Amino acid sequence: MAVEPFDTVDLIRTKRSSGTLSTAEIDWLVDAYTRGYVGDEQMAALAMAIFLNGMERREIRDLTLAMIASGERMSFGSLGKTTVDKHSTGGVGDKITLPLAPLVATFGVAVPQLSGRGLGHTGGTLDKLESIPGWQAAISNERMTEILSDVGAVICAAGSGLAPADKKLYALRDITGTVECIPLIASSIMSKKIAEGTAALVLDVKFGSGAFMADFEQSKLLAQTMVDLGKDAGVATSALLTDMEVPLGLTIGNALEVRESVEVLAGGGPADVVSLTVSLAEEMLRLAGITDADPAAALADGRAMDTWRRMIEAQGGDAAATLPVAAETHVVTATESGVLATQEALPFGIAAWRLGAGRARAQDPVQAGAGIELHVRPGDAVTAGQPLWTLHTDEPDRFERALESLEGAWSIGDSAPDRGPIVRERIQ
Amino acid sequence: MAVEPFDTVDLIRTKRSSGTLSTAEIDWLVDAYTRGYVGDEQMAALAMAIFLNGMERREIRDLTLAMIASGERMSFGSLGKTTVDKHSTGGVGDKITLPLAPLVATFGVAVPQLSGRGLGHTGGTLDKLESIPGWQAAISNERMTEILSDVGAVICAAGSGLAPADKKLYALRDITGTVECIPLIASSIMSKKIAEGTAALVLDVKFGSGAFMADFEQSKLLAQTMVDLGKDAGVATSALLTDMEVPLGLTIGNALEVRESVEVLAGGGPADVVSLTVSLAEEMLRLAGITDADPAAALADGRAMDTWRRMIEAQGGDAAATLPVAAETHVVTATESGVLATQEALPFGIAAWRLGAGRARAQDPVQAGAGIELHVRPGDAVTAGQPLWTLHTDEPDRFERALESLEGAWSIGDSAPDRGPIVRERIQ
Repeated sequence: MAVEPFDTVDLIRTKRSSGTLSTAEIDWLVDAYTRGYVGDEQMAALAMAIFLNGMERREIRDLTLAMIASGERMSFGSLGKTTVDKHSTGGVGDKITLPLAPLVATFGVAVPQLSGRGLGHTGGTLDKLESIPGWQAAISNERMTEILSDVGAVICAAGSGLAPADKKLYALRDITGTVECIPLIASSIMSKKIAEGTAALVLDVKFGSGAFMADFEQSKLLAQTMVDLGKDAGVATSALLTDMEVPLGLTIGNALEVRESVEVLAGGGPADVVSLTVSLAEEMLRLAGITDADPAAALADGRAMDTWRRMIEAQGGDAAATLPVAAETHVVTATESGVLATQEALPFGIAAWRLGAGRARAQDPVQAGAGIELHVRPGDAVTAGQPLWTLHTDEPDRFERALESLEGAWSIGDSAPDRGPIVRERIQ
Repeated sequence: MAVEPFDTVDLIRTKRSSGTLSTAEIDWLVDAYTRGYVGDEQMAALAMAIFLNGMERREIRDLTLAMIASGERMSFGSLGKTTVDKHSTGGVGDKITLPLAPLVATFGVAVPQLSGRGLGHTGGTLDKLESIPGWQAAISNERMTEILSDVGAVICAAGSGLAPADKKLYALRDITGTVECIPLIASSIMSKKIAEGTAALVLDVKFGSGAFMADFEQSKLLAQTMVDLGKDAGVATSALLTDMEVPLGLTIGNALEVRESVEVLAGGGPADVVSLTVSLAEEMLRLAGITDADPAAALADGRAMDTWRRMIEAQGGDAAATLPVAAETHVVTATESGVLATQEALPFGIAAWRLGAGRARAQDPVQAGAGIELHVRPGDAVTAGQPLWTLHTDEPDRFERALESLEGAWSIGDSAPDRGPIVRERIQ
């Protein structure tokens, strides 16, 4: 039996008393946790100590690098194209990756978008795309490189070999109340993204009631921490802080969001989705060194749609197929006339989840057609009896709990508060 | 599947943000942890949150009562004698239970002393008694009651049915860096002691370098917390705060400490061991309503020794047998002349542990003869070359690491600091 260079309990005690862990200690810890020498109960105690006592920038960087080192690291150096990636901290109705990846690829850069499935009220990009008949999330690294070379954009499942320590720690944090912690969130996101081998990365960091981290200042700190980590690892990184107080766009749910994304790619779609897609595309292209691009034009003239179709078909999807529709619908109408004053993202996300659009456990299936269509946005005039939201599900016994979630989540009044632009700040 | 009334992550989050858990939440948590619904990794995160954010008095009481309710509860109501128990938070050379239990029983009260084995540098009472040929720690509840009725004192292993939630949590805390936490220590000790069914309880709460909790004020807070818990549960409880800066008595190790205990029972023994034994006996007898007892006289005239012999023989021990002696000894001599100025308990405890007197893992055996004899105490004059400590072990390759632990743990100077009385304060 090899002698371990550190004692797990000593390391836990160090963070417990607000001390700092050395690079060697963090390297050992992540390796020992990955191979099972450090137990889940020990890592859980340490995660809570980190949650409550924090970590220094150097410790967060060491943790990120150690998690990258726990698995394989991809490289797109042989592509002959600049690679640029986007990551969103997740929000309600956030389908931006779908129009964004083909849009950016239209300008000659490669967009390797390794994505996940949804858990809880935040939908997963792969779940959305899987509502397209024939589309496959799992492809080999070789096929991924081929598609990046031919089409320029690929959205697929991350291989299990990337940052396995992060996968294990993320699952542990989920059940131990240690999720909303900047050092742990930042190192988790950045270890995966850096291991994916992108040259540049734009972070869409959400704030507001539908975001992972509701508070603006905390979201800003998270963004800054991740931008610093990216720079430390040689990845050109910037972040946009974007509003997630209300749902993004007019659809929440898998096939519903694909339909809206296709509308955007066809030059239409809700103004907020278009605006955020274009802002993120400009930022990604700026990091890739392309400053004269006009992404809005590429949406309007069909170039982005063409890349979308080729991207979907490269993974077996039928881009022309009719999307699945849920078996049952229920319409919520306005109880009075006035202006839609509030529309809180989180309860709408939970309602869509309860309708079957999301999953409670990793092994649960999702319904392709389930979700919510929003017919009005805050600030829109409404008249009594007018449809506000259409709820979709294959199982009508799900309506009741979804409607419970929507109670008090919206209101009609005289006016709506001005929310300002969706992109609130840029951090570089 | 029964629906659980609470969500584990919600409860962790409550303590994480310094909230309080309700009685119903704590009852459920302890039950759900005992039956395995709440996982070790979740309890570890919660324990760390409690460690860093504390618990209110009401929460500590609820936790204690819930841990008692997790198992069986003993009762000595049918004995027709007052029962009184003692618990020490543990120290180096602390063999007081051995002379104390028979001494107190001499005055007609029953002393049911359920004890444990040692882990780490603190020796276990059962390990010490097991060095007596024939003596058995494990006896039935029926036999225990018989001995209490006939002899008055019994020292035995606690059955596995008492406070199983505490056993599980204690083992978890040991490997997750969540040991030194007053709410968790107090509820652990008191749940076991209250489940044992004693009517009265005296706590020997140590402070100083050899104690579990070195700081005097922290030890005092621990003592007060436990005294409050005892009162809340209807157990007459008081605490003595006693000095554990230097080892207690002149022996550390299993058979060595039995030998010293027998010296005390024969009316001799080191002054500090006699003083603490008599103080604790007086306190126990006071709680039992006996105020005119003279424990010192019962040590001097052989009554306590008589009870000791009957107590040992009732569990199969040969009180007249020669005690085991280690195969090898090593004597440390004074490097210069002067006065022994310091003698730190903790490194001496660790040295005895490394010689084989204690165990690193619960399943390890201990050596009956291993340990350290101290030939001098702080304040004693020493001359260069004089023996200071004799190290005992069956395995001579253990001397080196034991001697390493003693380096810097003692010093010779002009004088020793005055340490004051061993019993520093009484809390009732």
